[in-house]
Amino acid sequence: MPASPLRVAIVGATGYSGVELVRRLARHPGAIVTGAYGSSASEAPRRLPGLARIWDGEVQPFDAGRVAHENDAAMLALPERAAAEIAPALLAAGLRVIDLSGAFRLRDEGARARWYPATGALPEGTVYGLAERDSAAIAGARLVSCPGCYPTAALLALGPLADAGLLAGDVIVDAKSGISGAGKAPSDRTHFSENHGSVAAYGVFTHRHTAEIEQELRHAVTFVPHLVPLDRGILETIYVRVPGGTTAADVASAFESAYAEAPFVRLTGTALPEIKHVAYTNFCDIGWVLDEAGGRLVVIACLDNLVKGAAGQAIQNFNVAFGLDERAGLL
Amino acid sequence: MPASPLRVAIVGATGYSGVELVRRLARHPGAIVTGAYGSSASEAPRRLPGLARIWDGEVQPFDAGRVAHENDAAMLALPERAAAEIAPALLAAGLRVIDLSGAFRLRDEGARARWYPATGALPEGTVYGLAERDSAAIAGARLVSCPGCYPTAALLALGPLADAGLLAGDVIVDAKSGISGAGKAPSDRTHFSENHGSVAAYGVFTHRHTAEIEQELRHAVTFVPHLVPLDRGILETIYVRVPGGTTAADVASAFESAYAEAPFVRLTGTALPEIKHVAYTNFCDIGWVLDEAGGRLVVIACLDNLVKGAAGQAIQNFNVAFGLDERAGLL
Amino acid sequence: MPASPLRVAIVGATGYSGVELVRRLARHPGAIVTGAYGSSASEAPRRLPGLARIWDGEVQPFDAGRVAHENDAAMLALPERAAAEIAPALLAAGLRVIDLSGAFRLRDEGARARWYPATGALPEGTVYGLAERDSAAIAGARLVSCPGCYPTAALLALGPLADAGLLAGDVIVDAKSGISGAGKAPSDRTHFSENHGSVAAYGVFTHRHTAEIEQELRHAVTFVPHLVPLDRGILETIYVRVPGGTTAADVASAFESAYAEAPFVRLTGTALPEIKHVAYTNFCDIGWVLDEAGGRLVVIACLDNLVKGAAGQAIQNFNVAFGLDERAGLL
Amino acid sequence: MPASPLRVAIVGATGYSGVELVRRLARHPGAIVTGAYGSSASEAPRRLPGLARIWDGEVQPFDAGRVAHENDAAMLALPERAAAEIAPALLAAGLRVIDLSGAFRLRDEGARARWYPATGALPEGTVYGLAERDSAAIAGARLVSCPGCYPTAALLALGPLADAGLLAGDVIVDAKSGISGAGKAPSDRTHFSENHGSVAAYGVFTHRHTAEIEQELRHAVTFVPHLVPLDRGILETIYVRVPGGTTAADVASAFESAYAEAPFVRLTGTALPEIKHVAYTNFCDIGWVLDEAGGRLVVIACLDNLVKGAAGQAIQNFNVAFGLDERAGLL
Repeated sequence: MPASPLRVAIVGATGYSGVELVRRLARHPGAIVTGAYGSSASEAPRRLPGLARIWDGEVQPFDAGRVAHENDAAMLALPERAAAEIAPALLAAGLRVIDLSGAFRLRDEGARARWYPATGALPEGTVYGLAERDSAAIAGARLVSCPGCYPTAALLALGPLADAGLLAGDVIVDAKSGISGAGKAPSDRTHFSENHGSVAAYGVFTHRHTAEIEQELRHAVTFVPHLVPLDRGILETIYVRVPGGTTAADVASAFESAYAEAPFVRLTGTALPEIKHVAYTNFCDIGWVLDEAGGRLVVIACLDNLVKGAAGQAIQNFNVAFGLDERAGLL
Repeated sequence: MPASPLRVAIVGATGYSGVELVRRLARHPGAIVTGAYGSSASEAPRRLPGLARIWDGEVQPFDAGRVAHENDAAMLALPERAAAEIAPALLAAGLRVIDLSGAFRLRDEGARARWYPATGALPEGTVYGLAERDSAAIAGARLVSCPGCYPTAALLALGPLADAGLLAGDVIVDAKSGISGAGKAPSDRTHFSENHGSVAAYGVFTHRHTAEIEQELRHAVTFVPHLVPLDRGILETIYVRVPGGTTAADVASAFESAYAEAPFVRLTGTALPEIKHVAYTNFCDIGWVLDEAGGRLVVIACLDNLVKGAAGQAIQNFNVAFGLDERAGLL
Repeated sequence: MPASPLRVAIVGATGYSGVELVRRLARHPGAIVTGAYGSSASEAPRRLPGLARIWDGEVQPFDAGRVAHENDAAMLALPERAAAEIAPALLAAGLRVIDLSGAFRLRDEGARARWYPATGALPEGTVYGLAERDSAAIAGARLVSCPGCYPTAALLALGPLADAGLLAGDVIVDAKSGISGAGKAPSDRTHFSENHGSVAAYGVFTHRHTAEIEQELRHAVTFVPHLVPLDRGILETIYVRVPGGTTAADVASAFESAYAEAPFVRLTGTALPEIKHVAYTNFCDIGWVLDEAGGRLVVIACLDNLVKGAAGQAIQNFNVAFGLDERAGLL
Repeated sequence: MPASPLRVAIVGATGYSGVELVRRLARHPGAIVTGAYGSSASEAPRRLPGLARIWDGEVQPFDAGRVAHENDAAMLALPERAAAEIAPALLAAGLRVIDLSGAFRLRDEGARARWYPATGALPEGTVYGLAERDSAAIAGARLVSCPGCYPTAALLALGPLADAGLLAGDVIVDAKSGISGAGKAPSDRTHFSENHGSVAAYGVFTHRHTAEIEQELRHAVTFVPHLVPLDRGILETIYVRVPGGTTAADVASAFESAYAEAPFVRLTGTALPEIKHVAYTNFCDIGWVLDEAGGRLVVIACLDNLVKGAAGQAIQNFNVAFGLDERAGLL
């Protein structure tokens, strides 16, 4: 653990994930927030409503020079185009970068060109960072590309099953997300009246998180996201065909061995998890039910999309990257 | 009642109130919807999602000539500036106009200049039309200016008390509104995540509906609106000082005599009304509790802001204006 | 169409489905509500809040004799045990019975004994009544057992695919339901604070609607229901493997030919349906997306669980049973 | 500050406020939770869902002897009848008691007999404990009776105005509360479907929090609470007549001098507070708008009813009572 607090800048501090970063890093025992910045150099300075007494600073226009010179690390909570533009210079200045956008998640050039066309080549030292599965890589990384909110839950649920050889056929991920996942920009899609009392699927066969899940899982998935009328949280219902003869003990063992040391994954077994128990926390709760005779497995995973799905796991990655206690600032 | 159905155009058919007009007028036994139009001549034609099998037409770009020539009446569900511009030509062409905007509500020139600066002089034949209180005027009007959503509830609750001489001091109207009242345009204010799990007051001492309530009531009011996390509905809690000696019977009598013949006002007495019982209906429910010893009266009034507070009462006014059954198309 | 209105009793009128029956039958052009009854002979008479001016009667204690003698039909919105007890006597008295419970849905004795143990043998003349698929049987039935809310959406979505031979493998039904589906009885499960801001799966591999779907579909399904934080509505996301070579035109054709004459099924094609467009209506909206190359089909179906999923389809069945216009009382 | 952690028992740990106590005291730097107990000796042991990794203990049946012998303090989150029965013995055993119920709030015997009939005489050393106004008394108290959720907001908003002589006439408190304020017991009143999409007033002129507010304020108030469809939070809109000549500076000064040192009161001035900024925190946010010419003042105060309105302020009182940092365990 470093002798003195690490200096951190938060870039893109006014979006929902950015505010969560500020809220939590302001109390982080091993970090000092040297500044919070908007997404561009032209944004007027502003205070963050609701953060008085928690972090009383002002969000400043983005200033690449100041960010580069004053910090050990930068956390980027930006649209992917802005992240793709900003990250290389910060890396060149020697900062470690924790990026929350999708800009650097896909390793395959063709896939990246399709889903994140603003990104060019991946900077050297880029790793995909799901702390529970990639901690060694994160520890040595220059740029940690944090998983998307949907892939975080999907990979935490499916990764141990893939490792244990329990994915025997179609994998279907039916995801239900709160509206904050659609971002802070006002639109028809985020209007209160369009979502209250309603549920809607979107992006069927065309959501770019599919490519991300498949890259990490090395298994095809059918992924359908839905918007449900709540603010924070994702619950994924995952349908898996397991190999003949798979027992409940096999499934439990796959999860338990994977997460024996993971502070933020809670296994609930057949007592299925619910969003309300993970909202405002960095936990991902995972439960499951196996139909042994039929070879069908249903796994439920849930998390807070702004915490474990975004700002919380970014801080977790920051902790891992700098050798701090993985839980620092997150409890 | 007219021998043949009245021909009606709906202008501004894509907003929340406009869609409600289309939905209900499409089934109105005494009217034919000749066309539904957008707010301007440049809007592309579009279908209304969710209205298939109810009204299968297309919303057209606004065409003043067609509207003027094909109709007996026009219902305007427009921003006030557009209403102020469009109404005079339709009146000149002989149509009766039912306007849902605020453009023509205030009779005092100074007040109108302050709150609705786009409106010039009031067209001849303009009346303020709250059907339960102004039916005679509506029957003879050329332009019926429909009350705002908040004033509708406030005036239905306070009008009978004013008439009976029961307003003896400060009148406070604390209003709670669903988010559809803020309109369909996406904004920070209408974003799902800004409203879910929250309540906020706005427009304290500066909401233009105050002037409208005071105009009709001829009594000063303190009016504070709030946004609450639901889609449709307004509930107003109204605090009144009554004259010494006022009895529960006096209050009940004031309401009962006022609404003995009103099909859309339901008096609940001391069983207080709730939004859920009026949502999706044209009812305004009113209940009250009197503290006889203290001279304090609390009145609760609620309605669906898109129906009785907008499209429903506009149709009610249309019915009254043309001598149809007041309830036609509204049950 | 009968010359005089049919006399109908509503039994179990105080639950959510019962109130919907009263609300709609009170305005039905071909029926007269002779009385509304509670679930037992010992319930005190009571008015239904919110129904003033719509139906001003009082719900009476259940009185088998009066119901049997005064009516042509009885609509039962009862717990299944009560329905199983009450229905036979009403049938014996010559009434046609429209039952909304699960008591009479399963034809297989073993399945019925497992899921609905209060039911003995099925009365003669019992049919399972999904109007869009079973209208001929309904027309001749003595007892119409109305489908469950979840099976209604599932069968309307999957039935045409099964008929067209398009179900080639696993079928998964991921259902999201509003809380009114859990009934009116207060419980931990229906508490506001347990559902607000949350989503939860339940009944994985153990929900009795699975047996009902499989009975009618003659195909195995994996069915997982979830509670989502809204009041009314079900949206089902259905994952299907189609035979190799299946085209988008094949799928469209299966749906279009099935529902060419169905007044309450609206096909939205690839514009996916949302609960908000079917809430408070008797419509079931169905959309779909086919991945032709991958042979994967996602179908989305949604409806209002209290209307098309309960009271509305019961009235639709009543209309079909008595030869009335299928849409009477439902628009 | 004590040399070693204080030993604390939580009694009534399974209700909403009790769970909040457990969650926060488990991380309190100056306290050790020796045990969490149910409301009676007959409750079966149980784990708290969602608290895994935060507090992994089991809630035990209440055991007066153990609680008395193992602790320096007891926090009671019980129904008032249970609190009235349990508190005296714990006090007799030398524990300091922090009580969240209403049992000990009212000093006037007659008022107590009316609103809290289960309570007899107030134990010696009982104080009403609103930390921002009563810290000296709390420091010396044996039993701290924590304010009700509604009075907490009302008194924080009105206390400084009363002290400054700014209450010149009627005071009206219109309160909007989330449903968790109605407690965890399932009832018609807490059913999801009864609250979703609705707002309802209740307890007009008959809510017992009125007596509590008036006791502390020494001024009459009209208090009307409402249930709004959210889980956590109270927003109160308070209408005050101020003396002639009162200026905006007078009002600001009253608040600023009162709360210069208060860590949990945030003054927002004319930028009105919203529930979303205080949810899940121990803050009470207060804003206001003065109509100088009219002598009308509207004050808005909001807080999280389970934190600042219950568990949070109980911990704050615990901190003050034992001389700890007032903020310990609350940030």
